[in-house]
Amino acid sequence: ALPLALFAGPCQLESRAHALEMASALKEIAGRLGIGLVYKTSFDKANRTSANAKRGLGLDAALPIFAEIRESLGLPIVTDVHEASQCARVAEAVDVLQIPAFLCRQTDLLIAAAETGRVVKVKKGQFLAPWDMKNVVAKVLAAGNPNVLVTERGASFGYNTLVTDMRALPILAETGAPVVFDATHSVQQPGGQGTATGGDRRFVPVLARAAVAVGVAAVFIETHQDPDHAPSDGPNMVPLGELEALLRNLQAFDRLAKA
Amino acid sequence: ALPLALFAGPCQLESRAHALEMASALKEIAGRLGIGLVYKTSFDKANRTSANAKRGLGLDAALPIFAEIRESLGLPIVTDVHEASQCARVAEAVDVLQIPAFLCRQTDLLIAAAETGRVVKVKKGQFLAPWDMKNVVAKVLAAGNPNVLVTERGASFGYNTLVTDMRALPILAETGAPVVFDATHSVQQPGGQGTATGGDRRFVPVLARAAVAVGVAAVFIETHQDPDHAPSDGPNMVPLGELEALLRNLQAFDRLAKA
Amino acid sequence: ALPLALFAGPCQLESRAHALEMASALKEIAGRLGIGLVYKTSFDKANRTSANAKRGLGLDAALPIFAEIRESLGLPIVTDVHEASQCARVAEAVDVLQIPAFLCRQTDLLIAAAETGRVVKVKKGQFLAPWDMKNVVAKVLAAGNPNVLVTERGASFGYNTLVTDMRALPILAETGAPVVFDATHSVQQPGGQGTATGGDRRFVPVLARAAVAVGVAAVFIETHQDPDHAPSDGPNMVPLGELEALLRNLQAFDRLAKA
Amino acid sequence: ALPLALFAGPCQLESRAHALEMASALKEIAGRLGIGLVYKTSFDKANRTSANAKRGLGLDAALPIFAEIRESLGLPIVTDVHEASQCARVAEAVDVLQIPAFLCRQTDLLIAAAETGRVVKVKKGQFLAPWDMKNVVAKVLAAGNPNVLVTERGASFGYNTLVTDMRALPILAETGAPVVFDATHSVQQPGGQGTATGGDRRFVPVLARAAVAVGVAAVFIETHQDPDHAPSDGPNMVPLGELEALLRNLQAFDRLAKA
Repeated sequence: ALPLALFAGPCQLESRAHALEMASALKEIAGRLGIGLVYKTSFDKANRTSANAKRGLGLDAALPIFAEIRESLGLPIVTDVHEASQCARVAEAVDVLQIPAFLCRQTDLLIAAAETGRVVKVKKGQFLAPWDMKNVVAKVLAAGNPNVLVTERGASFGYNTLVTDMRALPILAETGAPVVFDATHSVQQPGGQGTATGGDRRFVPVLARAAVAVGVAAVFIETHQDPDHAPSDGPNMVPLGELEALLRNLQAFDRLAKA
Repeated sequence: ALPLALFAGPCQLESRAHALEMASALKEIAGRLGIGLVYKTSFDKANRTSANAKRGLGLDAALPIFAEIRESLGLPIVTDVHEASQCARVAEAVDVLQIPAFLCRQTDLLIAAAETGRVVKVKKGQFLAPWDMKNVVAKVLAAGNPNVLVTERGASFGYNTLVTDMRALPILAETGAPVVFDATHSVQQPGGQGTATGGDRRFVPVLARAAVAVGVAAVFIETHQDPDHAPSDGPNMVPLGELEALLRNLQAFDRLAKA
Repeated sequence: ALPLALFAGPCQLESRAHALEMASALKEIAGRLGIGLVYKTSFDKANRTSANAKRGLGLDAALPIFAEIRESLGLPIVTDVHEASQCARVAEAVDVLQIPAFLCRQTDLLIAAAETGRVVKVKKGQFLAPWDMKNVVAKVLAAGNPNVLVTERGASFGYNTLVTDMRALPILAETGAPVVFDATHSVQQPGGQGTATGGDRRFVPVLARAAVAVGVAAVFIETHQDPDHAPSDGPNMVPLGELEALLRNLQAFDRLAKA
Repeated sequence: ALPLALFAGPCQLESRAHALEMASALKEIAGRLGIGLVYKTSFDKANRTSANAKRGLGLDAALPIFAEIRESLGLPIVTDVHEASQCARVAEAVDVLQIPAFLCRQTDLLIAAAETGRVVKVKKGQFLAPWDMKNVVAKVLAAGNPNVLVTERGASFGYNTLVTDMRALPILAETGAPVVFDATHSVQQPGGQGTATGGDRRFVPVLARAAVAVGVAAVFIETHQDPDHAPSDGPNMVPLGELEALLRNLQAFDRLAKA
């Protein structure tokens, strides 16, 4: 198996300057660790808990920034798509189209993403059993695109809580698609703060270590230089200053898991 | 409180003839019972478990049929919308736009539906706590549309199973929006048949009676003259021949609950 | 079907005077309503969240009080048993032995209770599927005692929360045993207050109406003249002063459900 | 932190010969690996799904066998206790008293086990949040016994399914008690075979690796030379012939986790 890869970045695209700064910092860390990096950022948070929450820069402002990060830093980029009509345009500026968990069964979105020819990274719905992702993968494959990734990010467990079932990782691998473990959203407490989603970043390293020990192709970790003041997912983002040590530890577990 | 109303129809729009036949039959039943009826049908099943499953007639073919049902039978119509761009066009032909459960937090879709001025009926996500629907309702209200309905249809409970928490009904009512109980999708077993979603229609009357006794504005019940040969949701649709007796019973419970 | 019966009383046996007062008050209410009453009280709360919580008077002090209630008021009594060795002695003083939910699969306890010849009322474990209660009922029947009741009291739903699946009621009825709905413990929030179990009595009438509408043999409702100062289960006991109106409403639903 | 220890043995005490054979085989494996071993076996399966299932040899027959294993092989022994009255007698023959998960809140049992002075190993109930185990540990400590172990073995997740929340491991560690991960019962499907409990041993190594990577004091793994013909827990026991390789792998993860 290939060594562990990394999807990382801040939750939202906050500004051109912030994006370039975060991407540069992550590129340096990835270089020191020799870990493959895909830069993650969202141009639109389309399903915020509350209508008053910040949604991001929007597609028009984001595309030139994505292009600049790819050109100046040579980093591949992953971003979310929310409607079928966005896929073609977003695909021009990014390498990986991510299908949000709530939308993982929207056939038109999956097909439109697949038809761009870009890698399609599908997050497993919080409402879905791991064995049901084979139908989701089949929708992408049937659209002629073999480059599909599946992502574990927790399952609904009572109200306002997610639980990660580590058995899901080998079950997802049976789809044939590489499995990514999203350590950030797995520790969310959806809606747990009334008009915002909570979380507990203390458990990011716990779940990430467990998943890497079981065996995954990549981890997805949102990070921010100041998570407590980030516009979204602050409670579950890892501070940038702690990321390198965490990744170094995960790489050691990955080598052992794949030995 | 107003007496119990009914949202009913087959899961899918199968053909013009089938739609007119079902709508006529339901109109007769509703007339005999004196129950308010909104005819439900879907022009597109956009999130089928498998890409090979039938999706319905599509928007272009459906709109004239919706118009014909409204004109010839005088029935209001509810149908699902899946992308923001569909809302304006669908709104010309129907009275109620329904937001599917998986999409209940897609802000753009909620706003686009709200801006049509039609009634917006939002299904609570399987992944959402009932108290979190207040944020969803607020998104519709903030878009200037006070005509919003909320629908209970079960919460994720382990894998491939939903459970209906009857406490959700009074909690949903605290949003100020009338509460609809969807007795059809609450008995689904999502993905429970491998490449299709299962269910158990034996429990439709059980859950419907419980919900009406607690107190709801309306019930939503999918029905079909031959559910075992219907193209979708067959295992949980009520046979048309059994609907009138079920409704008569629910009306009795409704009168008692609202006495 | 027989009309709805009632199991009611305070959670704990607090003192002889309190027990006689509560039992008298309940007997009067039951007489006015024409509802069959079994008086419930516990001599020992054997599984309190914290070791520091009050456990009750104990078996030796309780038995003469049970006898006095039966003789002076003519009321049948139900109480919990926790170990096989208690059953014979408790059976001399009460009419119904209740098996706590955590203990519903303890074979020796079920058999010892069954062998007393008293009615055995088993609470379904929070960890048990409703169809698995058939094995529990079979253990009592195999011990030669046909007088077994099964009780629904919620299923684990994430952490510190229970959910009541109303489908469980007809499934439990398939065991052949009369089904009791415990409206008090179904609204518990186990461990939800750190060192005590919380709850929300607002939902007692909600769940009780739903269950009675579906159809049950009896309801179980803990009550207290001053629940907020009761030594256990205060948050989910119904104030004695509100019980009669609640029961009158449930009786109306019961008549309709069994019409 | 101390290196990983092991609780292992067959689910049931089947016979003297079988017990001595299994214990010898496990002692040899543990010797080769340099892993601390506590031999596990049950004299009574007191909560079988069905009353017709085999329960084991019983206490009288088991105690001399326990004594023989301790003397002839020098192995410490762990076994379950089910009623307070058993504890003193069992404590004479074993080193660790295990409190079954269903019984983890039975105050008398916890105190009686604690008062023997033996190590008390408590399994977390399937219905309990991990933070609620602090109250359970406090009951043992308050009885004057500081030697308490806590065990993770999965939480109820819908019907007939358990899920292991790896976040529970550090939360349990906050009690101060060493944490044991039970990889055998975490893969149970309670009641999942109608009149027996199912499971899937494929996931034992998956969950065990995850737990050891997060960090635990010991793993608990039931094993049998022929699990498919064992009288209980067959579907989730590891074949004896596969145990050594599994443990060697877990030890490597443990060294990394504790580096």
